[in-house]
Amino acid sequence: MLPVLRLKAKAERRLKGGHLWVYSNEVDTAQTPLKSVSAGSEVIIETSAGKALGVAVASPEQLICARLFSRDASARLDGSQIVHRLKIALSSRELWYPHGCYRWVYGDSDGLPGLVIDRFGDVVVVQISSVAMELRRQDIADAINKVVKPECIVFKNDGKLRAVEGLPEYVDVIQGELEDDCAPLVENDTRFMAPVIHGQKTGWFYDHRENRAQLNRLVKGKRVLDVFSYIGGWGVQAANHGAAEVHCVDASGQALDWVEQNAALNGVEEKMHCWEGDAFTALKQLRDNGERFDVVVVDPPAFIPRRKDIKAGEQAYKRINQIAMRLLSKDGLIVSGSCSMHLAEDRLPDMLRNLGRELDREVLIQHVGSQGADHPVIPAIPETRYLKAVFARVLPTR
Amino acid sequence: MLPVLRLKAKAERRLKGGHLWVYSNEVDTAQTPLKSVSAGSEVIIETSAGKALGVAVASPEQLICARLFSRDASARLDGSQIVHRLKIALSSRELWYPHGCYRWVYGDSDGLPGLVIDRFGDVVVVQISSVAMELRRQDIADAINKVVKPECIVFKNDGKLRAVEGLPEYVDVIQGELEDDCAPLVENDTRFMAPVIHGQKTGWFYDHRENRAQLNRLVKGKRVLDVFSYIGGWGVQAANHGAAEVHCVDASGQALDWVEQNAALNGVEEKMHCWEGDAFTALKQLRDNGERFDVVVVDPPAFIPRRKDIKAGEQAYKRINQIAMRLLSKDGLIVSGSCSMHLAEDRLPDMLRNLGRELDREVLIQHVGSQGADHPVIPAIPETRYLKAVFARVLPTR
Repeated sequence: MLPVLRLKAKAERRLKGGHLWVYSNEVDTAQTPLKSVSAGSEVIIETSAGKALGVAVASPEQLICARLFSRDASARLDGSQIVHRLKIALSSRELWYPHGCYRWVYGDSDGLPGLVIDRFGDVVVVQISSVAMELRRQDIADAINKVVKPECIVFKNDGKLRAVEGLPEYVDVIQGELEDDCAPLVENDTRFMAPVIHGQKTGWFYDHRENRAQLNRLVKGKRVLDVFSYIGGWGVQAANHGAAEVHCVDASGQALDWVEQNAALNGVEEKMHCWEGDAFTALKQLRDNGERFDVVVVDPPAFIPRRKDIKAGEQAYKRINQIAMRLLSKDGLIVSGSCSMHLAEDRLPDMLRNLGRELDREVLIQHVGSQGADHPVIPAIPETRYLKAVFARVLPTR
Repeated sequence: MLPVLRLKAKAERRLKGGHLWVYSNEVDTAQTPLKSVSAGSEVIIETSAGKALGVAVASPEQLICARLFSRDASARLDGSQIVHRLKIALSSRELWYPHGCYRWVYGDSDGLPGLVIDRFGDVVVVQISSVAMELRRQDIADAINKVVKPECIVFKNDGKLRAVEGLPEYVDVIQGELEDDCAPLVENDTRFMAPVIHGQKTGWFYDHRENRAQLNRLVKGKRVLDVFSYIGGWGVQAANHGAAEVHCVDASGQALDWVEQNAALNGVEEKMHCWEGDAFTALKQLRDNGERFDVVVVDPPAFIPRRKDIKAGEQAYKRINQIAMRLLSKDGLIVSGSCSMHLAEDRLPDMLRNLGRELDREVLIQHVGSQGADHPVIPAIPETRYLKAVFARVLPTR
């Protein structure tokens, strides 16, 4: 028999409505103390009336003290369950992206809370952010081998969330070898090497794939600026889809070295120009030099990591988009990204329209894209839908 | 000097925030009576302090009594202004869809309130829904000829909104000739004939173009059901992109005749099967016959035409999606559309997840699409963003 966490009367409604997380203040700790449950173990979640809602994995010391992984109280998160879920997740990805390059597992959305897996063909990169998944790391590795038998498996376990759960940070290549610590991938017909050991997160951001595909349609013959370029996800693809010239700005010289390598992989290195430096400073410099671009992509890191950062973060989005807009040539296009879950869906397009009025430009919101199909959303959990990419034409004022 | 409508103190904030509509109860009628303004004329909109906010076209007897078309008080909606706006709108469309088939003008979003223009290459179909635009119909026709010189111009002025403004309903081919009362178009590489005279609205719904493009990627070898098919926008494209078999359901026998013609245009008529009848009844019949489909597209007419219909409309969405889901084979895909502005963005995916739990299926929300780039959104005016298309995989329960 598994241990039980019983909810307070008012707490069950959210879970019945499709949410999967239990907050520690929602547990009836008089009846079912949190300390009776060990970190990472399975636990039955019950309504206040004692009816089982499903099985969760527990993090009893955390604010989110349990995450439901099944509505069937007899389910267990064992090796065969993980194999089963990896298979279902795989078939859902292959339906959309049949070439082995995608976010294979996206945590709660795939019934595997605390686990992220990115696949780069024969290289699989795992990120674990919970004790529950850390305890199951051998099962996870075995399941990966059972389902796709990759040449190489990397545990890239250095995320910030780990410290919160008391987990150590480490990066291990547990199987196979990497060439130059990188993994090859293809996105929208463009080739990249993702720095899976030394880069950000898993080394690559698959989430913007569809948005980059949209941009690729629009860049022929254009002069493009890619701000916060990282290793060139937007910029190298734009160059490969006929942009006349692409300028990448990033604070990391190493990231820009990778931009150049990725450009060379696609034979577009002649078009690429890299600018190392703080984005705000670099853009002001470009503006002072009288530079103008037909397309500016602004895809910053999360400016609003926590709810309390909303005000300061919105200001930062406003500032960077304002500078970007001023670098546009007449009838230019801005692509404004945000990976901040706390920036509400409509805020960014609204902000761009308002900035336009301040600059005496008319801003036409043509498209608002989101994360790709390999990042499925649970509507009841807004945290699962975080990505925005606004495509706006900036025109002379009406 | 133009007449003036002065706003009450609290009413100006919305317009300053990017909205373009003035409601009749927001006007300080003591100072600026609505009856001093004639329908369709230009009018300066002022703040309560007497500062000009811009120029609007007036509908003094309507709930929305004025629509701002410029923030520049010296602007006029004359022939040359219409030419200018048509040119800007055209270049914004050609950037995304460079083959002459798109919604060329989308009302307020293009600074032309009350005007919709769909372009089918050399055939241009105009829909006018306000007195202001009706008074300018010659200017509009002249401007169209100046900008694209099409062979044929149709005024498809039979929308329901016209009666509200006291406008007569009529359909006029004011220039050129149509073959079989239809206009040829290409969408995502598939050919269609749009029934611009006898069909719904302008004859074609360009708004779902990007969503159909997504579906096209997913249908190879699949058995597809297209519910509320109209003339086959989804179904014929699916057949043309490798679906094994496509079944279209529509209440209109004439629409289904057009489905067959459009299928034949693309050489896929052998794959098409048409079912005439009420969607709810037809789907129950298919279910009783034991039919199963890999993909079901449910793209109904607006079930929530007015705010007061939200409750009944949501029930209707729920019912039709529930029946559709029950027709899916294992691991099937449902594409659920809604053109109801009053159905909130997150309601439809949430509804599908909940329906899944009722049917003991796990629903994975992979993509939520919206209207194409030829229907630009004004974030401050939610009415401009109305379209939803949810792509969800329906899996065995977890």
